Amino acid sequence: MKAAILGAAGYAGVELTRLLLGHPDFDLVAVTSERDAGKRVADVYPALATCDLVYQEHDTAALGPESQVVFLAVPHTAAMAVAPGLLAEGRVVVDASADFRLRDADLYAAWYGTPHRAPALLDGAVYGLPELWRASLPGARLIACPGCYPTASLLAVAPALEAEVTVSDRVVIDAKSGVSGAGRSPSAAAHFCAAAEAVAAYKAGVHRHTPEIAQGLADLGMAHPRLTFVPHLVPMTRGLLVTAYLEVEPGLSTDEAHALYASHYAAEPFVTVHPAARMPSTGEVRGTNRAHVGVAVDEASATLIVSVAIDNLVKGTSGQAVQCANLALGLTETAGLDLPCPVV
Amino acid sequence: MKAAILGAAGYAGVELTRLLLGHPDFDLVAVTSERDAGKRVADVYPALATCDLVYQEHDTAALGPESQVVFLAVPHTAAMAVAPGLLAEGRVVVDASADFRLRDADLYAAWYGTPHRAPALLDGAVYGLPELWRASLPGARLIACPGCYPTASLLAVAPALEAEVTVSDRVVIDAKSGVSGAGRSPSAAAHFCAAAEAVAAYKAGVHRHTPEIAQGLADLGMAHPRLTFVPHLVPMTRGLLVTAYLEVEPGLSTDEAHALYASHYAAEPFVTVHPAARMPSTGEVRGTNRAHVGVAVDEASATLIVSVAIDNLVKGTSGQAVQCANLALGLTETAGLDLPCPVV
Amino acid sequence: MKAAILGAAGYAGVELTRLLLGHPDFDLVAVTSERDAGKRVADVYPALATCDLVYQEHDTAALGPESQVVFLAVPHTAAMAVAPGLLAEGRVVVDASADFRLRDADLYAAWYGTPHRAPALLDGAVYGLPELWRASLPGARLIACPGCYPTASLLAVAPALEAEVTVSDRVVIDAKSGVSGAGRSPSAAAHFCAAAEAVAAYKAGVHRHTPEIAQGLADLGMAHPRLTFVPHLVPMTRGLLVTAYLEVEPGLSTDEAHALYASHYAAEPFVTVHPAARMPSTGEVRGTNRAHVGVAVDEASATLIVSVAIDNLVKGTSGQAVQCANLALGLTETAGLDLPCPVV
Amino acid sequence: MKAAILGAAGYAGVELTRLLLGHPDFDLVAVTSERDAGKRVADVYPALATCDLVYQEHDTAALGPESQVVFLAVPHTAAMAVAPGLLAEGRVVVDASADFRLRDADLYAAWYGTPHRAPALLDGAVYGLPELWRASLPGARLIACPGCYPTASLLAVAPALEAEVTVSDRVVIDAKSGVSGAGRSPSAAAHFCAAAEAVAAYKAGVHRHTPEIAQGLADLGMAHPRLTFVPHLVPMTRGLLVTAYLEVEPGLSTDEAHALYASHYAAEPFVTVHPAARMPSTGEVRGTNRAHVGVAVDEASATLIVSVAIDNLVKGTSGQAVQCANLALGLTETAGLDLPCPVV
Repeated sequence: MKAAILGAAGYAGVELTRLLLGHPDFDLVAVTSERDAGKRVADVYPALATCDLVYQEHDTAALGPESQVVFLAVPHTAAMAVAPGLLAEGRVVVDASADFRLRDADLYAAWYGTPHRAPALLDGAVYGLPELWRASLPGARLIACPGCYPTASLLAVAPALEAEVTVSDRVVIDAKSGVSGAGRSPSAAAHFCAAAEAVAAYKAGVHRHTPEIAQGLADLGMAHPRLTFVPHLVPMTRGLLVTAYLEVEPGLSTDEAHALYASHYAAEPFVTVHPAARMPSTGEVRGTNRAHVGVAVDEASATLIVSVAIDNLVKGTSGQAVQCANLALGLTETAGLDLPCPVV
Repeated sequence: MKAAILGAAGYAGVELTRLLLGHPDFDLVAVTSERDAGKRVADVYPALATCDLVYQEHDTAALGPESQVVFLAVPHTAAMAVAPGLLAEGRVVVDASADFRLRDADLYAAWYGTPHRAPALLDGAVYGLPELWRASLPGARLIACPGCYPTASLLAVAPALEAEVTVSDRVVIDAKSGVSGAGRSPSAAAHFCAAAEAVAAYKAGVHRHTPEIAQGLADLGMAHPRLTFVPHLVPMTRGLLVTAYLEVEPGLSTDEAHALYASHYAAEPFVTVHPAARMPSTGEVRGTNRAHVGVAVDEASATLIVSVAIDNLVKGTSGQAVQCANLALGLTETAGLDLPCPVV
Repeated sequence: MKAAILGAAGYAGVELTRLLLGHPDFDLVAVTSERDAGKRVADVYPALATCDLVYQEHDTAALGPESQVVFLAVPHTAAMAVAPGLLAEGRVVVDASADFRLRDADLYAAWYGTPHRAPALLDGAVYGLPELWRASLPGARLIACPGCYPTASLLAVAPALEAEVTVSDRVVIDAKSGVSGAGRSPSAAAHFCAAAEAVAAYKAGVHRHTPEIAQGLADLGMAHPRLTFVPHLVPMTRGLLVTAYLEVEPGLSTDEAHALYASHYAAEPFVTVHPAARMPSTGEVRGTNRAHVGVAVDEASATLIVSVAIDNLVKGTSGQAVQCANLALGLTETAGLDLPCPVV
Repeated sequence: MKAAILGAAGYAGVELTRLLLGHPDFDLVAVTSERDAGKRVADVYPALATCDLVYQEHDTAALGPESQVVFLAVPHTAAMAVAPGLLAEGRVVVDASADFRLRDADLYAAWYGTPHRAPALLDGAVYGLPELWRASLPGARLIACPGCYPTASLLAVAPALEAEVTVSDRVVIDAKSGVSGAGRSPSAAAHFCAAAEAVAAYKAGVHRHTPEIAQGLADLGMAHPRLTFVPHLVPMTRGLLVTAYLEVEPGLSTDEAHALYASHYAAEPFVTVHPAARMPSTGEVRGTNRAHVGVAVDEASATLIVSVAIDNLVKGTSGQAVQCANLALGLTETAGLDLPCPVV
């Protein structure tokens, strides 16, 4: 199956590139880049030294008529500008941007500061988080890949909500991301000397992933989520850790909560629930499409503590996009995602 | 004034060493070390190349009769073994360990797994967090320096509790520490290859600083704190960030909350409250005795978010010990702590 | 083909584990560990969460009679203790230690401070650096995998020596290694707080890889090498960079030197020679079996500068061991080594 | 004495700011910035939270008539544009740029790609490396502060050249710098994700510090230096390590070479020569104006190996500028530079 990537030279795009190059069922035929058009991928990213592709002009025309699947690794607003046309051409669109994640166009406008340009597509877009909503993916034509924070956050709370062990609608999510989450463009915050040896919260309570997490919480059955979401920047390249805090029934034990999670994710190929009270490190999942989950209950405060580690560029973005494409197109869900990545 | 350090070759001890070497009022006359006795400080720590001190045998006898102030930078249990003798000799004891922080000997036994050996001293020990309990320090003979996590945590919540803007006793504290918090002894967790490029929670809900924070919350007026405390390890050497989450009255705005904090800490020489909603980075306080504070309210969930950044080895340990000693002995509070440390 | 690893819980061993688990032709049937015997690999290394193997007792008996290939990832001296027996049992032995690299038992004794216990095997041992001595590998029964520094160093100088463009026997090799090169055991040097934000030379002129590099230089035709080798420790987990300095004929240009290298390595599946004067970063080869090469000539001083980047745990150890095993056993040289590793 | 900084918001400038704020003899009255004019220093750099200065317009007029000493922390070409005017106004100019380091205007034009605009000042400019040319500093009006690489490089070779133990004019200098050496402006190379977990050479043989090092070698008595200089970028914020390789008389021992260095630097307040064969780490000098020196001889190749560690922003730039200003103005050489910086 022919595939193409629009916006392939950013971090999400190049990660998609390496994944699709190694995928048994996709043939990556075109990659575009606004900044690097005309350059060889191997010259821009020497780690892909053996790749012969050249970045094409950053235009859907460059994707070639034969690309049946198009991955969009462009900023928000750019995706909704091109998706209608690509869909009209009969292609499957897997969008890594934020443009089709929120079902409510007004909510989009409120948080992204611009009207939605393709609201008619929102109803048909499928939110691509297979572990929670796998059934909606087969046959999907437009897939909205979740943000990295929502992916880890929703995986962290879903089993507790499903089991109805929470006793309030308050959810505190304290998240920690590596610097690659800020993208490839140089910036003051991404400067090595600013990011190294430092940790800080940013956009406390006002990060754009907040309404997306809240939408997911509602979908999972929480009537009126009172969500507090605070992301932090941590001095590492890859990795995203979410620690979620939920009020639960007094008396719920760590072992009981752990059993809920272990059972919920038992059949998931990409999720590992650690032994009770053992917390995951982002180092364990680096370079992979995996999510590792740790569960503990602080009985004194009747608080469920769930920590989920993912690689923000793989399970948090590009790996999940491939996983969703696999499911949408009837391929093996794990195809191309069995990544033997470095242990240390 | 003559000073000595018992246990001066660990991270807290060597940090005390550099601070006392530069202090205008203290004359550091003896440093001891179990591991490095007989070695020059300059050989163990080449950064102190100009220091002529030699580590003495790790025994109170090595402190010399002239040391009027003794800093204990030893593990818990070791401090309570020597403190009574040192006090009996008429010395002022500044203890950086956990031995005299909890006023309840049973609580100590429960969390530290060993009976308290000097319970009679607990009542007279002064908890050394000057910004919150400065008045108790002048004349103190035994100072229990707070743990690094409690220091940042209590600074984060005190103004809100004093102003009585919280509406529940639930407190979530999500903390992030640099690796030096684990001490100088090599360990699997402190191995560069384990700590770099990774972040993880540890001891979720069961860290020994939990009861100390809870005791502080009660002292600040929270009747029955329901505290959830989860520390995380972050790939940096120094620095500690606490992000605290408190339920507040609906309608409290970021500006109102910020005003409370700015006012509360206006006169503090070591505390800076950032403009409303601007969050501090540990990189700003590295190597200093400062605490930088950021305040925001997530109005949708009526949650106060306070982030406090300190250097775990300075304001979190050794700098605070010096600050307390200054106050106990009637010196200028900031003496020896005006550290012109690197900006980047 | 059945394979086993003796000493599989150190960094080289676990890297071999992940490579062999993903190898199409090897079936990893046994892994041993002195420290972790009885534990699941997945528990010791959560990154290998999907691996069902359990560390066996650290004894050759645990390798099972069916293991036709045994990889030794044990410290020097331990390898020569077991190799004779394994060979006598008809197995192929791929040794990642230093025990069979030096052909001169006296030289071994001089540098390693202990007599060689299996000198009779030295003549038959094959030095496993395929890019330089590929012809010796097919059918080899005992393969001595080069050290990480010699691998990069010899790749850096071989084309120049073959082309006879050097004018003296002086070779300066300044090498930079990530911390994983020091192994998994906690140590003062590997402590995060010692290694981070610091770079230093160590064992200047006296590192044990020196005679191995010199032996290789002689094999490449340099009659009496005057080698100066200085390794440095750099704050990163993986990666090894060698910058080699060779005196060359006045007038040799960067383009000429580059052409020699490009030609020499044109057919190598794991080597990329960058465009003239473009230097490689270890970040490009992280997690892979690749060597990236940069070539420049400083014409004013008639000095050839060659920089080679490898991943010390892959091309520097375990990947190369697999590459050698592939060649020794008649498999495809690149089998199991086509690693789609993270670009950033 | 009133002082001002032109270009105070870059890394060199802000480092000068913190040093001058703590200096007993200088009163910092004005700081300018092109990018940050109008902002408080404390807002741009929260680490300087207690600083009340505001960045002025980036113009010499903003320095105020009372500034007797002006530090230039501007890019090359900008310094030579303003120095003549400042000198004509009777001020002492301490220039941290490259504009007055090379005495030969043609050499400047060749390496910097632009003609020198103030060649008449070159003869009178004093090269500010006190440990080697202290006598020229008292009374100096225009001080050219050495580059960071030349500082460490010349300190590494001077004692050997003075003692005439070298036997050739070949000098190989392999240098390793932290990322702050590239300045504060965001760039692809300084992006955390590019710089972390990677080491690479850059500008091999063509770095602009090369002619400056060569000029210094000639000044130290090496008739026709054949210098090869290769800098590398290392994943740390601060620190610069030079490892220099010199051919010496056969038979020269490590102890003999060490004695030369120990003797040469015995009286230097900022230089420590480590015990023979013990190599310095940049971590030892972080945040300080110190240079730590390690000396070894590889007797087999008759090569002297000298490693020098400095902080690139202090002894490599701003600290040295203050040291030079102290000497030029008759102050205590170490005034304001006794920095009690963090040990770990």
